Amino acid sequence: MNVGVIGTGAIGTDHIRRLTGRVAGARVTAVFDVDTARAATVAAMAGAASHREADDVIDDPAVEAVLVASPGDTHADLVLACIAAGKPVLCEKPLASTSDAALKVVEAEVTYGRRLVQVGFMRRYDGGYLGVKTALAAGRIGEPLLVHCVHRNVSVPPSFTGDMSLTDSLVHEVDACRWLLDQEIVAATVVDVPHSPLALPQLRDPRLVLLETERGIVIDAEVFVNARYGYDVRCEVVGTTGTVALDAPSTGVVALEGGRVQALPMDWEARFGQAYVDELQAWVDAASQGTADGPSAWDGYAATAVAEAAVASRGARTKVDLAERPGLYSGESLP
Amino acid sequence: MNVGVIGTGAIGTDHIRRLTGRVAGARVTAVFDVDTARAATVAAMAGAASHREADDVIDDPAVEAVLVASPGDTHADLVLACIAAGKPVLCEKPLASTSDAALKVVEAEVTYGRRLVQVGFMRRYDGGYLGVKTALAAGRIGEPLLVHCVHRNVSVPPSFTGDMSLTDSLVHEVDACRWLLDQEIVAATVVDVPHSPLALPQLRDPRLVLLETERGIVIDAEVFVNARYGYDVRCEVVGTTGTVALDAPSTGVVALEGGRVQALPMDWEARFGQAYVDELQAWVDAASQGTADGPSAWDGYAATAVAEAAVASRGARTKVDLAERPGLYSGESLP
Amino acid sequence: MNVGVIGTGAIGTDHIRRLTGRVAGARVTAVFDVDTARAATVAAMAGAASHREADDVIDDPAVEAVLVASPGDTHADLVLACIAAGKPVLCEKPLASTSDAALKVVEAEVTYGRRLVQVGFMRRYDGGYLGVKTALAAGRIGEPLLVHCVHRNVSVPPSFTGDMSLTDSLVHEVDACRWLLDQEIVAATVVDVPHSPLALPQLRDPRLVLLETERGIVIDAEVFVNARYGYDVRCEVVGTTGTVALDAPSTGVVALEGGRVQALPMDWEARFGQAYVDELQAWVDAASQGTADGPSAWDGYAATAVAEAAVASRGARTKVDLAERPGLYSGESLP
Amino acid sequence: MNVGVIGTGAIGTDHIRRLTGRVAGARVTAVFDVDTARAATVAAMAGAASHREADDVIDDPAVEAVLVASPGDTHADLVLACIAAGKPVLCEKPLASTSDAALKVVEAEVTYGRRLVQVGFMRRYDGGYLGVKTALAAGRIGEPLLVHCVHRNVSVPPSFTGDMSLTDSLVHEVDACRWLLDQEIVAATVVDVPHSPLALPQLRDPRLVLLETERGIVIDAEVFVNARYGYDVRCEVVGTTGTVALDAPSTGVVALEGGRVQALPMDWEARFGQAYVDELQAWVDAASQGTADGPSAWDGYAATAVAEAAVASRGARTKVDLAERPGLYSGESLP
Repeated sequence: MNVGVIGTGAIGTDHIRRLTGRVAGARVTAVFDVDTARAATVAAMAGAASHREADDVIDDPAVEAVLVASPGDTHADLVLACIAAGKPVLCEKPLASTSDAALKVVEAEVTYGRRLVQVGFMRRYDGGYLGVKTALAAGRIGEPLLVHCVHRNVSVPPSFTGDMSLTDSLVHEVDACRWLLDQEIVAATVVDVPHSPLALPQLRDPRLVLLETERGIVIDAEVFVNARYGYDVRCEVVGTTGTVALDAPSTGVVALEGGRVQALPMDWEARFGQAYVDELQAWVDAASQGTADGPSAWDGYAATAVAEAAVASRGARTKVDLAERPGLYSGESLP
Repeated sequence: MNVGVIGTGAIGTDHIRRLTGRVAGARVTAVFDVDTARAATVAAMAGAASHREADDVIDDPAVEAVLVASPGDTHADLVLACIAAGKPVLCEKPLASTSDAALKVVEAEVTYGRRLVQVGFMRRYDGGYLGVKTALAAGRIGEPLLVHCVHRNVSVPPSFTGDMSLTDSLVHEVDACRWLLDQEIVAATVVDVPHSPLALPQLRDPRLVLLETERGIVIDAEVFVNARYGYDVRCEVVGTTGTVALDAPSTGVVALEGGRVQALPMDWEARFGQAYVDELQAWVDAASQGTADGPSAWDGYAATAVAEAAVASRGARTKVDLAERPGLYSGESLP
Repeated sequence: MNVGVIGTGAIGTDHIRRLTGRVAGARVTAVFDVDTARAATVAAMAGAASHREADDVIDDPAVEAVLVASPGDTHADLVLACIAAGKPVLCEKPLASTSDAALKVVEAEVTYGRRLVQVGFMRRYDGGYLGVKTALAAGRIGEPLLVHCVHRNVSVPPSFTGDMSLTDSLVHEVDACRWLLDQEIVAATVVDVPHSPLALPQLRDPRLVLLETERGIVIDAEVFVNARYGYDVRCEVVGTTGTVALDAPSTGVVALEGGRVQALPMDWEARFGQAYVDELQAWVDAASQGTADGPSAWDGYAATAVAEAAVASRGARTKVDLAERPGLYSGESLP
Repeated sequence: MNVGVIGTGAIGTDHIRRLTGRVAGARVTAVFDVDTARAATVAAMAGAASHREADDVIDDPAVEAVLVASPGDTHADLVLACIAAGKPVLCEKPLASTSDAALKVVEAEVTYGRRLVQVGFMRRYDGGYLGVKTALAAGRIGEPLLVHCVHRNVSVPPSFTGDMSLTDSLVHEVDACRWLLDQEIVAATVVDVPHSPLALPQLRDPRLVLLETERGIVIDAEVFVNARYGYDVRCEVVGTTGTVALDAPSTGVVALEGGRVQALPMDWEARFGQAYVDELQAWVDAASQGTADGPSAWDGYAATAVAEAAVASRGARTKVDLAERPGLYSGESLP
């Protein structure tokens, strides 16, 4: 399958590298980036054409499917163009900058009549999360009541501002919990917590967020993007008869100088690199059949809507005002 | 040191067994219980006298120190009587049923002029909590920002009603966090979460509580007294440069039928049995010098005040209205 | 790259599935199996031709590289034919049934003058083993002195007989240790241990083997192919200042009925599935450049020679009689 | 119970501190040490008399039981004197410098007709070992086949010479395995392994020892007394249907600078401090009834005999030449 890639920054280039060298059945044949020099370099590396406009990638007759990895505020329009062209598209999160814009994507896809859009929530392809999902589906812990989440990054660049820890980081917890629990999140509250003096002043970091699902399950999520010590993602679901939790991934234990040390990943590539490969493989497999796998436009919309409610909450419980879910998305999950 | 024990129910009898067989320097010489038959049996076992009234234990000239393990609503008056008699007393938690009653104990002790009262917050003597305290004191994780606590019991008896998961269970987290962080808790909020269908209907179980310290640190605490699978107490302090957490205690790993299994304790005796012994030893050592160790009347008062605020909160942030801390309690911790 | 696969049993079919659906840059175009019906089915599935003889796969002009997954006693001749045809070949372990036969492969490749042969020791591509290798290379534990290995299978089929736990299972430990320590194993001793009554009587199971490297490091390896409870592979290297060990891979922790349970893999696919994919990707990448990656014919020869010494040892320390290592194999490892 | 202590070096003083401050029912009333100044200091601290000769402690009419913590070569004679005096005695390991001397103690106790002697194998009182014992007794892993042991110290003083890693360290593994498996060890082999350049030259360190029980179970034990990184004791019993292992004891997990760190104990006090207290409590309880608990003179004899065989083995399997076990020791364990 010939893939066109829009956006050849760090994430786009990583995806191209994976599509070219780690995934079966795909070839990158066209790319675009506003940084034309960078696009040219990446195109040469991948043996792809470098186009002048993002839309040229979508319209390129040789391109069978599109991967969108440009800045977040360009996502919705590009995905709409892909739908208009009838081409499968994998869109990095977020699907759109606002829930309104995301809803337009949902509506366009519903009008088109078949799923073309996959959103890049790669955690659904992580072995750890899949293990939690399997345990829940098997009823091993009874009925879920609570979820405890932690999302810690070592640090963020100065470009990371304002509420991005909610709109860019927390959305992963939102999608993961919706998927694990198979239900919508209907309310969000951001609790006031102290700001780390080591975080940039324009951020509120860490954040503690309470989320509530349609059936009343409460999720507490710590998002801490300047945690310094490592990239640490945790999730424990507490049920009526037991709990299930992500385990720390491991690449060995070193016993040294009075301690037994498990190395921690320092970034998402180390933690979720394999999940990205598996996400891309699943996407290529589905897109070559003209459709999409896993997280849908609806999932992208719902995650954005929850993040919006969290941003608006300022300490008070805030309802998530979700549209009605179209039948197109009433697949195996989230009835 | 001759000890008189008031209350020979399960906890009182366990304490007598420890004082008699596991602790150096103590002898149980007098007991009282409203169940006089039971008191007589226990007295015979311990080689102690069985008195007709609780006050007779306190007034017994041979008794040098008193251990109070009777029902919670009797605690404050008995401790006041001990102070009046000038005898060191270890009082099981809670120190009193209300913060007003607890404050009266504080005032009486201040008037007496020396610490006589120790409250039974045994976690301060647990190796795991001591390890967390040591790491914090050494500054290993920078400045604390957040604390995540979990307190799960297998189940509770039918006598466990209403808000006891706040007044009887949560108080352990309250005391542990005050001690670990060396600061007062000034606000509490109980968040609405689903009720476990396996818990007795008169309870709200689990509970999710947010606590806030005087310097703004936020503590989230899950209290789940019908967790079924085990007795599981966890605590992770998140700091600016790292985190420190209680580790699961272990009595071996069995690899069996597709899993590696770490046995969990099923009750507090299995989890904190050694902490109780160490608590009693520290108390006997201090009481034989005419004073007390560790958790003070002030700590008992503060824990009760925070639990009261939590009970009153009904989902809204509720201030803890603490009295001013007397100089008597401005020792090494909580300046 | 067009790949021909010889042997379409369980392992061969798994490899075809991975080459087709998980690896970039490969296509299976020809297959052979003595079970012609099975070969035809697999060929149809993969869109490949089904040949009448194994040699027809090697000689097929469209086939650019060959994967050998037929029974072990056919390996050496097939690999020799690949070398004669100048085609890269990935040969499942063992490279040959005897060290003499393996040495002939080495000699043929040396005569050919370039590495064409890769042997299927997939552990070198496992994230856990790579973590141990990295720690050793970084000198984190000082100088290695001892290695403790465990290799446990749930069970083996009745076809697993005699000394196969040495020639088929232990060879993985042999290769992993040679690679981790970067030195040859020069002696082997099988220690008498009790036979498990649950293992087939024709086996000696478990086995305890002592191996000795050229610089005197001692490796003890338990091989237990009827361990029942799970597929459990462990390796700890003990150095002068610390130790480094494989960690248990994990897909989540379930707390249930008095225990905290980490699920164990039950077979090599669950444990090393990703390592097989990564092995194949590395092979495809190298073979498309006309050469091979990782474990060489020499490594296959050395592993077979050590297993032979182990079989011969009968409780007495037995020297491994290694040929001199040709310059072709004096790459980055094993100077 | 009035206890006399012979030997007030580090271990003796630790025991006195525990008997005085952590154990119920004991009082140290007499001490002796060849270093009379030290003995006087310790005596003053404990409120005990300081005697001129070791035998004076034993003969002191006020002394009801004796604890022997003097150098190992004095043990046997002192224990014999205690038996002659009919006084219960807790003897630090080893019971004697030679198995012949130990056997004389056994014979004297048999003649006396009742157990008076307890040997200081404290691991039998450790919660971790007790968990392993319980799992074995419950048949959770089927029939034991193999045991893997590790015994690592940070370092040893220059006075630690020659074969002491066998006679002083390995004996703990010998006793623990005899007790866990409930059978005698009948053969020992020390395998040649490289010497750590960081260990004193007069030692062979580490050691790898193979032990064999009367029913053929094989134990491999690494003893490494200059392991540098921590005090690390491990034990895994491999059975027909599962395995059971000591878990690492923990006092908290710190996540810091790219790693999750479990602190390791650095010495036996940190690792087995509580086991020593529980051992002493059990001894005081038994001795006050005129007898002994746990490890017997026979156990001390057997451990010494196995260590002797190990020392003599020099790489060859060496039989342990055990005397016939007297009926006095045919209690609940080791039929």
